[in-house]
Amino acid sequence: MTKLLSEYTKYGSKFSTVDISTFGILEGISETIVSTGLEYPNAAPIGIIVRDGRLFVRLFRGSHTWANVLKEGYMAANIIYNPLLFVRSTFFDLEPPEFDYVTAHRLKFPILKEAAAWIIFKCISVINTDQSLIADLIPMNAGFNEMNKMNILVPNRGFNAVLEATVHATRYQLSGDKKYLKLIQHYANLASKCGGENEKRAMKLLHEVLER
Amino acid sequence: MTKLLSEYTKYGSKFSTVDISTFGILEGISETIVSTGLEYPNAAPIGIIVRDGRLFVRLFRGSHTWANVLKEGYMAANIIYNPLLFVRSTFFDLEPPEFDYVTAHRLKFPILKEAAAWIIFKCISVINTDQSLIADLIPMNAGFNEMNKMNILVPNRGFNAVLEATVHATRYQLSGDKKYLKLIQHYANLASKCGGENEKRAMKLLHEVLER
Repeated sequence: MTKLLSEYTKYGSKFSTVDISTFGILEGISETIVSTGLEYPNAAPIGIIVRDGRLFVRLFRGSHTWANVLKEGYMAANIIYNPLLFVRSTFFDLEPPEFDYVTAHRLKFPILKEAAAWIIFKCISVINTDQSLIADLIPMNAGFNEMNKMNILVPNRGFNAVLEATVHATRYQLSGDKKYLKLIQHYANLASKCGGENEKRAMKLLHEVLER
Repeated sequence: MTKLLSEYTKYGSKFSTVDISTFGILEGISETIVSTGLEYPNAAPIGIIVRDGRLFVRLFRGSHTWANVLKEGYMAANIIYNPLLFVRSTFFDLEPPEFDYVTAHRLKFPILKEAAAWIIFKCISVINTDQSLIADLIPMNAGFNEMNKMNILVPNRGFNAVLEATVHATRYQLSGDKKYLKLIQHYANLASKCGGENEKRAMKLLHEVLER
Protein backbone atom coordinates (compact mmCIF):
# COMPACT_ATOMS: atom_id res chain seq x y z
CA MET A 1 0.00 0.00 0.00
CA THR A 2 2.81 2.39 0.93
CA LYS A 3 4.48 1.77 -2.41
CA LEU A 4 1.30 2.47 -4.31
CA LEU A 5 0.64 5.66 -2.36
CA SER A 6 4.11 7.04 -3.01
CA GLU A 7 3.75 6.28 -6.70
CA TYR A 8 0.52 8.25 -6.87
CA THR A 9 1.94 11.11 -4.88
CA LYS A 10 4.79 11.23 -7.36
CA TYR A 11 2.32 11.06 -10.21
CA GLY A 12 0.23 13.77 -8.61
CA SER A 13 3.14 16.15 -8.11
CA LYS A 14 4.15 15.73 -11.73
CA PHE A 15 0.95 17.15 -13.16
CA SER A 16 -1.26 18.41 -10.37
CA THR A 17 -1.50 19.17 -6.68
CA VAL A 18 -4.44 16.78 -6.16
CA ASP A 19 -3.41 13.43 -4.67
CA ILE A 20 -6.07 11.16 -6.15
CA SER A 21 -5.19 8.25 -3.83
CA THR A 22 -6.59 10.33 -0.92
CA PHE A 23 -9.88 10.18 -2.79
CA GLY A 24 -9.71 6.40 -3.16
CA ILE A 25 -8.63 6.31 -6.82
CA LEU A 26 -6.06 3.51 -6.80
CA GLU A 27 -4.51 1.17 -9.36
CA GLY A 28 -7.14 -0.71 -11.35
CA ILE A 29 -10.60 0.52 -12.33
CA SER A 30 -12.46 2.67 -9.80
CA GLU A 31 -16.22 2.62 -10.37
CA THR A 32 -17.46 6.19 -10.14
CA ILE A 33 -20.39 8.14 -11.54
CA VAL A 34 -19.04 10.76 -13.91
CA SER A 35 -20.85 14.07 -14.29
CA THR A 36 -20.31 16.28 -17.34
CA GLY A 37 -22.01 19.12 -19.21
CA LEU A 38 -21.41 22.72 -18.22
CA GLU A 39 -24.79 23.70 -19.68
CA TYR A 40 -26.93 20.57 -19.31
CA PRO A 41 -25.59 18.32 -16.53
CA ASN A 42 -25.49 14.60 -17.17
CA ALA A 43 -24.29 11.62 -15.11
CA ALA A 44 -23.31 8.04 -15.96
CA PRO A 45 -21.26 5.26 -14.32
CA ILE A 46 -17.69 5.35 -15.67
CA GLY A 47 -14.55 3.50 -14.58
CA ILE A 48 -11.53 5.66 -13.78
CA ILE A 49 -8.51 3.62 -14.84
CA VAL A 50 -5.03 3.70 -13.29
CA ARG A 51 -2.64 1.35 -15.07
CA ASP A 52 1.17 1.48 -15.06
CA GLY A 53 1.12 5.00 -13.62
CA ARG A 54 -1.25 6.27 -16.33
CA LEU A 55 -4.59 7.81 -15.28
CA PHE A 56 -7.19 7.63 -18.03
CA VAL A 57 -10.76 6.93 -19.06
CA ARG A 58 -12.51 5.17 -21.93
CA LEU A 59 -15.91 6.45 -23.05
CA PHE A 60 -18.16 4.70 -25.53
CA ARG A 61 -19.03 6.68 -28.62
CA GLY A 62 -22.48 8.19 -28.73
CA SER A 63 -23.07 8.57 -24.98
CA HIS A 64 -23.81 11.97 -23.40
CA THR A 65 -20.57 11.67 -21.42
CA TRP A 66 -18.64 11.04 -24.62
CA ALA A 67 -20.23 14.05 -26.38
CA ASN A 68 -19.63 16.39 -23.42
CA VAL A 69 -15.99 15.37 -22.93
CA LEU A 70 -15.32 15.73 -26.65
CA LYS A 71 -16.86 19.22 -26.64
CA GLU A 72 -15.73 20.60 -23.27
CA GLY A 73 -12.66 18.56 -22.27
CA TYR A 74 -13.60 18.16 -18.61
CA MET A 75 -15.37 15.63 -16.41
CA ALA A 76 -16.03 15.12 -12.68
CA ALA A 77 -15.74 11.70 -11.02
CA ASN A 78 -18.20 11.32 -8.12
CA ILE A 79 -17.56 8.72 -5.40
CA ILE A 80 -21.02 7.26 -4.79
CA TYR A 81 -22.11 4.68 -2.18
CA ASN A 82 -25.78 4.46 -3.17
CA PRO A 83 -26.40 1.46 -5.45
CA LEU A 84 -29.70 2.91 -6.67
CA LEU A 85 -27.85 5.88 -8.16
CA PHE A 86 -25.66 3.51 -10.21
CA VAL A 87 -28.75 1.87 -11.74
CA ARG A 88 -30.62 5.17 -12.22
CA SER A 89 -27.68 6.94 -13.88
CA THR A 90 -27.07 3.94 -16.17
CA PHE A 91 -30.59 3.86 -17.61
CA PHE A 92 -32.14 7.28 -16.87
CA ASP A 93 -31.29 10.97 -16.79
CA LEU A 94 -30.81 12.28 -13.26
CA GLU A 95 -32.87 15.35 -12.28
CA PRO A 96 -31.25 18.84 -12.30
CA PRO A 97 -31.75 19.27 -8.48
CA GLU A 98 -29.51 16.21 -7.93
CA PHE A 99 -26.51 18.23 -9.13
CA ASP A 100 -24.43 20.75 -7.25
CA TYR A 101 -21.78 23.03 -8.77
CA VAL A 102 -18.12 23.56 -7.92
CA THR A 103 -15.70 26.02 -9.45
CA ALA A 104 -12.37 25.20 -11.10
CA HIS A 105 -10.60 27.18 -13.83
CA ARG A 106 -13.34 29.82 -13.54
CA LEU A 107 -15.87 27.27 -14.79
CA LYS A 108 -18.75 25.79 -12.82
CA PHE A 109 -18.72 22.02 -12.95
CA PRO A 110 -21.71 19.80 -12.12
CA ILE A 111 -21.09 17.26 -9.36
CA LEU A 112 -23.59 14.99 -7.60
CA LYS A 113 -25.03 16.12 -4.26
CA GLU A 114 -24.94 12.51 -3.08
CA ALA A 115 -21.18 12.11 -3.71
CA ALA A 116 -18.95 11.31 -0.72
CA ALA A 117 -16.16 12.98 -2.71
CA TRP A 118 -15.60 14.41 -6.19
CA ILE A 119 -12.63 15.08 -8.47
CA ILE A 120 -12.66 17.41 -11.49
CA PHE A 121 -10.44 16.16 -14.30
CA LYS A 122 -9.12 17.89 -17.39
CA CYS A 123 -9.16 15.42 -20.29
CA ILE A 124 -6.04 15.58 -22.44
CA SER A 125 -4.42 13.56 -25.27
CA VAL A 126 -7.92 12.65 -26.45
CA ILE A 127 -8.05 9.83 -28.99
CA ASN A 128 -11.46 9.43 -30.62
CA THR A 129 -12.04 6.23 -32.61
CA ASP A 130 -15.07 4.56 -34.22
CA GLN A 131 -15.92 2.79 -30.97
CA SER A 132 -14.72 4.96 -28.14
CA LEU A 133 -12.77 7.91 -26.83
CA ILE A 134 -9.70 7.50 -24.66
CA ALA A 135 -8.41 10.48 -22.66
CA ASP A 136 -5.69 10.98 -20.07
CA LEU A 137 -6.93 12.68 -16.92
CA ILE A 138 -5.34 15.55 -15.01
CA PRO A 139 -6.97 16.15 -11.60
CA MET A 140 -7.75 19.89 -11.29
CA ASN A 141 -9.72 20.16 -8.10
CA ALA A 142 -11.25 17.74 -5.60
CA GLY A 143 -13.21 17.77 -2.40
CA PHE A 144 -15.13 15.79 0.15
CA ASN A 145 -18.78 16.31 0.88
CA GLU A 146 -18.44 16.45 4.66
CA MET A 147 -22.12 15.59 5.17
CA ASN A 148 -21.83 12.37 3.15
CA LYS A 149 -18.30 11.53 4.30
CA MET A 150 -19.44 10.90 7.87
CA ASN A 151 -20.44 7.39 6.79
CA ILE A 152 -17.66 5.14 5.58
CA LEU A 153 -18.21 2.35 3.06
CA VAL A 154 -18.00 -1.19 4.41
CA PRO A 155 -17.75 -3.98 1.82
CA ASN A 156 -21.22 -5.39 1.14
CA ARG A 157 -21.73 -8.26 -1.33
CA GLY A 158 -25.25 -6.97 -2.00
CA PHE A 159 -23.95 -3.55 -3.07
CA ASN A 160 -21.33 -5.27 -5.24
CA ALA A 161 -24.01 -7.52 -6.75
CA VAL A 162 -25.97 -4.46 -7.92
CA LEU A 163 -22.86 -3.17 -9.74
CA GLU A 164 -22.34 -6.55 -11.43
CA ALA A 165 -26.03 -6.87 -12.36
CA THR A 166 -25.97 -3.36 -13.88
CA VAL A 167 -22.94 -4.24 -16.03
CA HIS A 168 -24.66 -7.44 -17.22
CA ALA A 169 -27.93 -5.58 -17.88
CA THR A 170 -26.21 -3.14 -20.24
CA ARG A 171 -24.55 -6.09 -22.00
CA TYR A 172 -27.93 -7.81 -22.29
CA GLN A 173 -29.46 -4.69 -23.82
CA LEU A 174 -26.63 -4.50 -26.37
CA SER A 175 -26.49 -8.20 -27.29
CA GLY A 176 -29.84 -9.76 -26.32
CA ASP A 177 -27.87 -12.78 -25.10
CA LYS A 178 -29.99 -14.58 -22.48
CA LYS A 179 -26.92 -15.78 -20.54
CA TYR A 180 -26.85 -12.30 -19.01
CA LEU A 181 -30.36 -12.74 -17.57
CA LYS A 182 -29.15 -15.80 -15.65
CA LEU A 183 -26.22 -13.84 -14.23
CA ILE A 184 -28.53 -10.95 -13.29
CA GLN A 185 -30.78 -13.39 -11.41
CA HIS A 186 -27.76 -14.72 -9.49
CA TYR A 187 -26.82 -11.18 -8.44
CA ALA A 188 -30.45 -10.32 -7.62
CA ASN A 189 -30.46 -13.19 -5.11
CA LEU A 190 -27.18 -11.95 -3.64
CA ALA A 191 -28.47 -8.36 -3.38
CA SER A 192 -31.58 -9.65 -1.61
CA LYS A 193 -29.55 -11.80 0.81
CA CYS A 194 -26.70 -9.41 1.61
CA GLY A 195 -28.02 -5.95 0.73
CA GLY A 196 -30.18 -3.40 2.46
CA GLU A 197 -33.15 -1.34 1.33
CA ASN A 198 -31.19 0.60 -1.34
CA GLU A 199 -29.84 -2.61 -2.89
CA LYS A 200 -33.35 -4.07 -3.11
CA ARG A 201 -34.77 -0.88 -4.62
CA ALA A 202 -31.89 -0.82 -7.13
CA MET A 203 -32.53 -4.43 -8.23
CA LYS A 204 -36.29 -3.78 -8.50
CA LEU A 205 -35.58 -0.83 -10.81
CA LEU A 206 -33.15 -2.94 -12.86
CA HIS A 207 -35.83 -5.60 -13.37
CA GLU A 208 -38.29 -2.91 -14.46
CA VAL A 209 -35.76 -1.61 -17.00
CA LEU A 210 -35.26 -5.11 -18.42
CA GLU A 211 -39.00 -5.71 -18.72
CA ARG A 212 -39.60 -2.52 -20.73
CA MET B 1 -31.04 6.70 3.65
CA THR B 2 -32.25 9.18 6.25
CA LYS B 3 -34.89 6.74 7.44
CA LEU B 4 -32.34 3.98 7.91
CA LEU B 5 -29.96 6.26 9.78
CA SER B 6 -32.63 7.35 12.25
CA GLU B 7 -33.58 3.72 12.85
CA TYR B 8 -30.01 2.85 13.74
CA THR B 9 -29.62 5.88 15.94
CA LYS B 10 -32.76 4.78 17.76
CA TYR B 11 -31.39 1.28 18.02
CA GLY B 12 -28.07 2.63 19.22
CA SER B 13 -29.57 4.82 21.93
CA LYS B 14 -31.58 1.89 23.26
CA PHE B 15 -28.55 -0.20 24.12
CA SER B 16 -25.39 1.78 23.54
CA THR B 17 -23.95 5.18 22.73
CA VAL B 18 -22.15 3.92 19.60
CA ASP B 19 -23.96 4.77 16.34
CA ILE B 20 -22.87 1.86 14.14
CA SER B 21 -24.12 3.52 10.92
CA THR B 22 -21.32 6.11 11.33
CA PHE B 23 -18.97 3.15 10.99
CA GLY B 24 -20.65 1.95 7.81
CA ILE B 25 -22.63 -0.93 9.36
CA LEU B 26 -25.96 -0.64 7.55
CA GLU B 27 -28.91 -2.93 6.82
CA GLY B 28 -27.83 -6.19 5.17
CA ILE B 29 -24.58 -8.05 5.69
CA SER B 30 -21.42 -5.96 6.19
CA GLU B 31 -18.27 -7.90 5.33
CA THR B 32 -15.75 -7.25 8.09
CA ILE B 33 -12.79 -9.11 9.56
CA VAL B 34 -13.64 -10.06 13.14
CA SER B 35 -10.88 -10.23 15.75
CA THR B 36 -11.34 -12.19 18.98
CA GLY B 37 -9.25 -13.78 21.72
CA LEU B 38 -8.16 -11.74 24.74
CA GLU B 39 -5.19 -14.06 25.25
CA TYR B 40 -4.39 -15.37 21.74
CA PRO B 41 -5.68 -12.95 19.08
CA ASN B 42 -7.35 -14.42 16.02
CA ALA B 43 -8.98 -12.89 12.93
CA ALA B 44 -11.44 -14.18 10.32
CA PRO B 45 -13.87 -12.65 7.79
CA ILE B 46 -17.37 -12.49 9.33
CA GLY B 47 -20.54 -10.78 8.12
CA ILE B 48 -22.19 -8.38 10.57
CA ILE B 49 -25.92 -8.71 9.96
CA VAL B 50 -28.55 -5.98 10.39
CA ARG B 51 -32.03 -7.27 9.58
CA ASP B 52 -35.37 -5.79 10.75
CA GLY B 53 -33.59 -3.63 13.33
CA ARG B 54 -31.73 -6.60 14.83
CA LEU B 55 -27.92 -6.54 14.92
CA PHE B 56 -26.44 -10.03 15.05
CA VAL B 57 -23.81 -12.47 13.86
CA ARG B 58 -23.69 -16.13 12.87
CA LEU B 59 -20.50 -18.10 13.52
CA PHE B 60 -19.83 -21.59 12.27
CA ARG B 61 -19.16 -24.17 14.95
CA GLY B 62 -15.55 -25.20 15.41
CA SER B 63 -13.87 -22.01 14.20
CA HIS B 64 -11.51 -20.00 16.43
CA THR B 65 -13.96 -17.09 16.31
CA TRP B 66 -16.78 -19.37 17.46
CA ALA B 67 -14.70 -20.76 20.36
CA ASN B 68 -13.54 -17.31 21.50
CA VAL B 69 -17.02 -15.75 21.39
CA LEU B 70 -18.48 -18.71 23.26
CA LYS B 71 -15.77 -18.41 25.95
CA GLU B 72 -15.36 -14.62 26.23
CA GLY B 73 -18.59 -13.09 24.90
CA TYR B 74 -16.91 -10.28 22.92
CA MET B 75 -15.71 -9.64 19.38
CA ALA B 76 -14.31 -6.71 17.38
CA ALA B 77 -15.42 -5.99 13.80
CA ASN B 78 -12.62 -4.45 11.73
CA ILE B 79 -13.44 -2.44 8.57
CA ILE B 80 -10.76 -3.58 6.12
CA TYR B 81 -10.06 -2.33 2.58
CA ASN B 82 -7.16 -4.66 1.76
CA PRO B 83 -8.37 -7.69 -0.24
CA LEU B 84 -5.22 -9.65 0.62
CA LEU B 85 -6.15 -9.53 4.30
CA PHE B 86 -9.53 -11.12 3.54
CA VAL B 87 -7.83 -14.06 1.82
CA ARG B 88 -5.06 -14.35 4.43
CA SER B 89 -7.44 -14.28 7.40
CA THR B 90 -9.72 -16.86 5.74
CA PHE B 91 -7.01 -19.48 5.26
CA PHE B 92 -4.15 -18.55 7.61
CA ASP B 93 -3.51 -17.20 11.09
CA LEU B 94 -2.46 -13.56 11.09
CA GLU B 95 0.78 -12.67 12.90
CA PRO B 96 0.66 -11.20 16.45
CA PRO B 97 2.31 -7.89 15.31
CA GLU B 98 -0.67 -7.33 12.97
CA PHE B 99 -2.89 -6.73 16.02
CA ASP B 100 -3.28 -3.63 18.12
CA TYR B 101 -5.17 -3.40 21.43
CA VAL B 102 -7.97 -1.12 22.57
CA THR B 103 -9.60 -0.94 25.98
CA ALA B 104 -13.29 -1.33 26.76
CA HIS B 105 -14.86 -2.60 30.02
CA ARG B 106 -11.35 -2.73 31.53
CA LEU B 107 -10.41 -5.43 29.02
CA LYS B 108 -7.89 -5.17 26.20
CA PHE B 109 -9.39 -6.23 22.88
CA PRO B 110 -7.35 -7.17 19.79
CA ILE B 111 -8.13 -5.13 16.68
CA LEU B 112 -6.31 -5.08 13.35
CA LYS B 113 -3.72 -2.39 12.73
CA GLU B 114 -4.83 -2.21 9.11
CA ALA B 115 -8.48 -1.45 9.98
CA ALA B 116 -9.95 1.85 8.78
CA ALA B 117 -12.32 1.57 11.75
CA TRP B 118 -13.22 -0.96 14.46
CA ILE B 119 -16.21 -1.68 16.69
CA ILE B 120 -16.10 -3.79 19.88
CA PHE B 121 -19.31 -5.78 20.41
CA LYS B 122 -20.63 -7.58 23.45
CA CYS B 123 -22.33 -10.80 22.32
CA ILE B 124 -25.62 -11.49 24.11
CA SER B 125 -28.58 -13.90 23.77
CA VAL B 126 -26.13 -16.50 22.44
CA ILE B 127 -27.78 -19.53 20.84
CA ASN B 128 -25.36 -22.36 20.17
CA THR B 129 -26.58 -25.17 17.90
CA ASP B 130 -24.98 -28.19 16.21
CA GLN B 131 -23.99 -26.08 13.19
CA SER B 132 -23.50 -22.55 14.40
CA LEU B 133 -23.74 -19.89 17.05
CA ILE B 134 -26.04 -16.89 16.71
CA ALA B 135 -25.51 -13.87 18.97
CA ASP B 136 -27.03 -10.41 19.20
CA LEU B 137 -24.44 -7.65 19.22
CA ILE B 138 -24.24 -4.62 21.50
CA PRO B 139 -21.66 -2.04 20.35
CA MET B 140 -19.47 -1.12 23.35
CA ASN B 141 -16.74 1.04 21.87
CA ALA B 142 -15.64 2.07 18.40
CA GLY B 143 -13.00 4.17 16.71
CA PHE B 144 -11.39 5.21 13.47
CA ASN B 145 -7.76 4.59 12.68
CA GLU B 146 -6.97 8.13 11.50
CA MET B 147 -3.91 6.96 9.57
CA ASN B 148 -5.96 4.46 7.53
CA LYS B 149 -9.08 6.62 7.32
CA MET B 150 -7.37 9.19 5.13
CA ASN B 151 -8.09 6.96 2.15
CA ILE B 152 -11.73 6.37 1.33
CA LEU B 153 -12.99 3.21 -0.38
CA VAL B 154 -14.16 3.59 -3.97
CA PRO B 155 -16.13 0.68 -5.44
CA ASN B 156 -13.78 -1.60 -7.39
CA ARG B 157 -15.07 -4.71 -9.18
CA GLY B 158 -11.65 -6.32 -8.71
CA PHE B 159 -11.79 -5.92 -4.93
CA ASN B 160 -15.34 -7.28 -4.95
CA ALA B 161 -14.24 -10.21 -7.11
CA VAL B 162 -11.66 -11.22 -4.49
CA LEU B 163 -14.41 -11.34 -1.83
CA GLU B 164 -16.61 -13.50 -4.07
CA ALA B 165 -13.72 -15.81 -5.01
CA THR B 166 -12.84 -16.26 -1.31
CA VAL B 167 -16.43 -17.23 -0.49
CA HIS B 168 -16.46 -19.74 -3.35
CA ALA B 169 -13.03 -21.11 -2.34
CA THR B 170 -14.26 -21.94 1.17
CA ARG B 171 -17.34 -23.63 -0.36
CA TYR B 172 -15.07 -25.60 -2.69
CA GLN B 173 -12.94 -26.74 0.24
CA LEU B 174 -16.06 -27.90 2.11
CA SER B 175 -17.83 -29.60 -0.80
CA GLY B 176 -15.19 -30.41 -3.44
CA ASP B 177 -17.76 -29.34 -6.06
CA LYS B 178 -15.85 -28.28 -9.19
CA LYS B 179 -18.50 -25.69 -10.15
CA TYR B 180 -16.83 -23.40 -7.61
CA LEU B 181 -13.51 -23.57 -9.49
CA LYS B 182 -15.24 -22.19 -12.59
CA LEU B 183 -16.71 -19.32 -10.56
CA ILE B 184 -13.32 -18.62 -8.97
CA GLN B 185 -11.74 -18.42 -12.44
CA HIS B 186 -14.41 -15.91 -13.51
CA TYR B 187 -13.60 -13.72 -10.50
CA ALA B 188 -9.84 -14.15 -11.01
CA ASN B 189 -10.25 -12.65 -14.49
CA LEU B 190 -12.29 -9.78 -13.06
CA ALA B 191 -9.70 -9.13 -10.32
CA SER B 192 -6.96 -9.06 -12.95
CA LYS B 193 -8.92 -6.69 -15.22
CA CYS B 194 -10.30 -4.28 -12.60
CA GLY B 195 -8.07 -4.68 -9.56
CA GLY B 196 -4.72 -3.33 -8.50
CA GLU B 197 -1.62 -4.93 -7.05
CA ASN B 198 -3.34 -6.07 -3.82
CA GLU B 199 -6.18 -7.76 -5.72
CA LYS B 200 -3.67 -9.63 -7.89
CA ARG B 201 -1.62 -10.73 -4.88
CA ALA B 202 -4.81 -11.86 -3.14
CA MET B 203 -5.92 -13.99 -6.10
CA LYS B 204 -2.42 -15.48 -6.44
CA LEU B 205 -2.54 -16.53 -2.78
CA LEU B 206 -6.04 -17.95 -3.25
CA HIS B 207 -4.83 -20.10 -6.14
CA GLU B 208 -1.91 -21.33 -4.01
CA VAL B 209 -4.35 -22.29 -1.24
CA LEU B 210 -6.51 -24.25 -3.69
CA GLU B 211 -3.49 -26.08 -5.12
CA ARG B 212 -2.29 -27.30 -1.70
